[in-house]
Amino acid sequence: MSQLNDVLAHLESEQPAALDRLFELLRIESISTDPAYSGACGAAADWLVADLRSIGFEATRRETPGHPMVVAHSPGDGPRFLFYGHYDVQPVDPLDLWDRPPFDPAVEDTADGKVIRGRGAGDDKGQLMTFIEACRAYKAVTGTLPANITIFLEGEEESGSPSLVPFLEANREELKADIALVCDTGMWDAETPSISTMLRGMVGEEVTITAASKDLHSGLYGGPAINPIRVLTRILSNLHDENGQITLPGFYDGVSEIPDAVKAQWESLGFDADAFLGAVGLSHPAGEKGYSALEQIWARPTCEINGINGGYTGPGFKTVLPAKAMAKVSFRLVGDQDPDKIQATFEQYVRESLPPDCSVDFISKNNAPATVMPIDAPEFIKAQKALTEEWGKEALFAGGGGSIPVVGHFREILKMDSLLIGFGLDDDAIHSPNEKYNLVSFQKGARSWARILDALTC
Amino acid sequence: MSQLNDVLAHLESEQPAALDRLFELLRIESISTDPAYSGACGAAADWLVADLRSIGFEATRRETPGHPMVVAHSPGDGPRFLFYGHYDVQPVDPLDLWDRPPFDPAVEDTADGKVIRGRGAGDDKGQLMTFIEACRAYKAVTGTLPANITIFLEGEEESGSPSLVPFLEANREELKADIALVCDTGMWDAETPSISTMLRGMVGEEVTITAASKDLHSGLYGGPAINPIRVLTRILSNLHDENGQITLPGFYDGVSEIPDAVKAQWESLGFDADAFLGAVGLSHPAGEKGYSALEQIWARPTCEINGINGGYTGPGFKTVLPAKAMAKVSFRLVGDQDPDKIQATFEQYVRESLPPDCSVDFISKNNAPATVMPIDAPEFIKAQKALTEEWGKEALFAGGGGSIPVVGHFREILKMDSLLIGFGLDDDAIHSPNEKYNLVSFQKGARSWARILDALTC
Repeated sequence: MSQLNDVLAHLESEQPAALDRLFELLRIESISTDPAYSGACGAAADWLVADLRSIGFEATRRETPGHPMVVAHSPGDGPRFLFYGHYDVQPVDPLDLWDRPPFDPAVEDTADGKVIRGRGAGDDKGQLMTFIEACRAYKAVTGTLPANITIFLEGEEESGSPSLVPFLEANREELKADIALVCDTGMWDAETPSISTMLRGMVGEEVTITAASKDLHSGLYGGPAINPIRVLTRILSNLHDENGQITLPGFYDGVSEIPDAVKAQWESLGFDADAFLGAVGLSHPAGEKGYSALEQIWARPTCEINGINGGYTGPGFKTVLPAKAMAKVSFRLVGDQDPDKIQATFEQYVRESLPPDCSVDFISKNNAPATVMPIDAPEFIKAQKALTEEWGKEALFAGGGGSIPVVGHFREILKMDSLLIGFGLDDDAIHSPNEKYNLVSFQKGARSWARILDALTC
Repeated sequence: MSQLNDVLAHLESEQPAALDRLFELLRIESISTDPAYSGACGAAADWLVADLRSIGFEATRRETPGHPMVVAHSPGDGPRFLFYGHYDVQPVDPLDLWDRPPFDPAVEDTADGKVIRGRGAGDDKGQLMTFIEACRAYKAVTGTLPANITIFLEGEEESGSPSLVPFLEANREELKADIALVCDTGMWDAETPSISTMLRGMVGEEVTITAASKDLHSGLYGGPAINPIRVLTRILSNLHDENGQITLPGFYDGVSEIPDAVKAQWESLGFDADAFLGAVGLSHPAGEKGYSALEQIWARPTCEINGINGGYTGPGFKTVLPAKAMAKVSFRLVGDQDPDKIQATFEQYVRESLPPDCSVDFISKNNAPATVMPIDAPEFIKAQKALTEEWGKEALFAGGGGSIPVVGHFREILKMDSLLIGFGLDDDAIHSPNEKYNLVSFQKGARSWARILDALTC
């Protein structure tokens, strides 16, 4: 306990070196979804193994059919903690919208203070390094690592985590802990830390509709030849009704209305929907009618088209009737919605909507159910207190619109809950050009973990 | 008259050399819609100027704000003819579906006989060279070119012809003729020549819908943030009703029902819709209900989505809410439909369909009305007779589903009709991978023009 202040002081003095280390990791182009970057993903894992070993972890690179996992142990007695983060990042296109090369990180001055700019700064390299820097400071100050911690870092989070479930199943005993610590979420706002206690689930499907055996000329065939783009737009368009509700039969099974008490609590948060949307050029909550913007993000399921492609899309015009059209569709789930059932209903809806001469292929992404955490468990209370002390403002138990499938898998396979604590902000532009992570998030994030480790392990 | 047989004999003996010349032209990558190939377009124009000069034409390369025109004269007395073709070609993507490099032409044996394979073989380099080879044979046999012919070759037909109207307006007197000869259409079938007497008109629009100021993460913003792909799919989907009719107000103004007599004539053609669709893997005429496949192509307007793009479309998944979504939409027009009015109605429909926070940009392609030719004019009767003599089967006056905007411009600006004679076939895969032109089309095409020139100029 008395060592905490020394650890915090050490973190202050180590700031420039910590930033150099993060920059090294950010320079590695670990885009997991694109096979061209497979070597870079391995290099990021190797860098982390070496860094963790340098501070005393028993760290290993663990091969999978995809990108490697990193597992690092600091064995000991007492309660066991599993820290989770991911070293892979999103693709960087469209590249021309970046103000600097995405893998050439730098600290930049902005109207809101200093930020670390670069792909992965906020999602998730900057975040996972806050935890490693806290461990490093413990080791430097006390000579030993905090006892009984396992660090588990994935390299496929941004590409559907195909190896995650088999790896958890194969390494159940090694990875099992009393609770997981997951650093892949955000703060309530730049001043207010939060612990995410609700995560939306996910169903992802790539849908490809095929009609003719080849691309056709619309002068010759326009009229009698079916156009798969037209078929696809009709199918996608019918997924929502005029109130923004999703039309798949049974889709809302397992979705509860928000209790009035919770609604009142959320309203008291003073969430500024105008500012939230205004920051990205929007003014109008476009989700289901009858729900506030916050409810639309935290408590309501969605169906989104994340990508669509078909026919000629280059410069100029080409009067082609394409043979194929493709869309990437994802559903965010809440409550007890069943991802597998929704996937099956969606596929059935698409098949039944196909006109003659059309066929469909699906590529499905790892499904994950929604999650709600037990906020009265002692770990949650201790972590909330530690965060509150660091930030000088009471840490919130917050909802959340994102999906972190690993949390569902930890619960199902390793039978443990997750403390979701992160220091990202809504304007971090994760998954977008000019991604950033506030320098304050990186520095106070590491200090926060030092306090949380102290609270949890003492 | 007596020289025609000598000209035809000369064309026979010249076949290998004619093929070599066509291959030289096919090797030039003159993709007009992609600025990267701008130099190649100029090279194709230069090649044609040199070739036309070599046979006695007064040929010049004429600059435009886009790709150059080629104009070549063989002055003389009597009726004046303007031959039109285009030296530019369509893009070649998807490249992996080509069985050989698109710009490395070759003669290949197929079940249906020998074909010339390569981009532009059928559309339109192979076709325009049939006319030039006929002229060359005349020059070789008679020592002079057929009198009073102008050859006018465009390099922007596949990219909306932006320079065409200004060029026609600026060179009215030089280009005006009694009738145009246009070689950019097809035969009825491999045995039956035809003269196209109806062309569908065209309206083309690239529609880009913009919502947020940047790409967003669907975990953070999914729900309240409007998704422009969803907006676009809804707008496109509502363009057709359940009967396949286009819903834009006033769209069918100017579309006449087909007279029963014409319908009967078309039915007597024995058009095999099953075979036509079956050749490209389809079985079901997908256009407006209540019309045969042939009526859908020849006599009914269409609305097609030729391309669509938005969000993440690479390998894997990216849960992005994109800032923009784009579609390329074209309308084929018939009868007296007014292209400018339809463009305005379409743009108004899109604007009125936009939800809050969305804006739209349009890029419009050259509009062109539909055309019907006077098939009892003497040139039409002479050309039909010449074609019938060459092919040994009566040449048809046929409808046609394509749009050749130049024909409308010739009528409006130069006040002349067009004789649309070409030797393409439905299976030529123009605008698609593995484009071809039957060797017979190339050889008998040149012979056909020799006969037509003889009939028209004697």
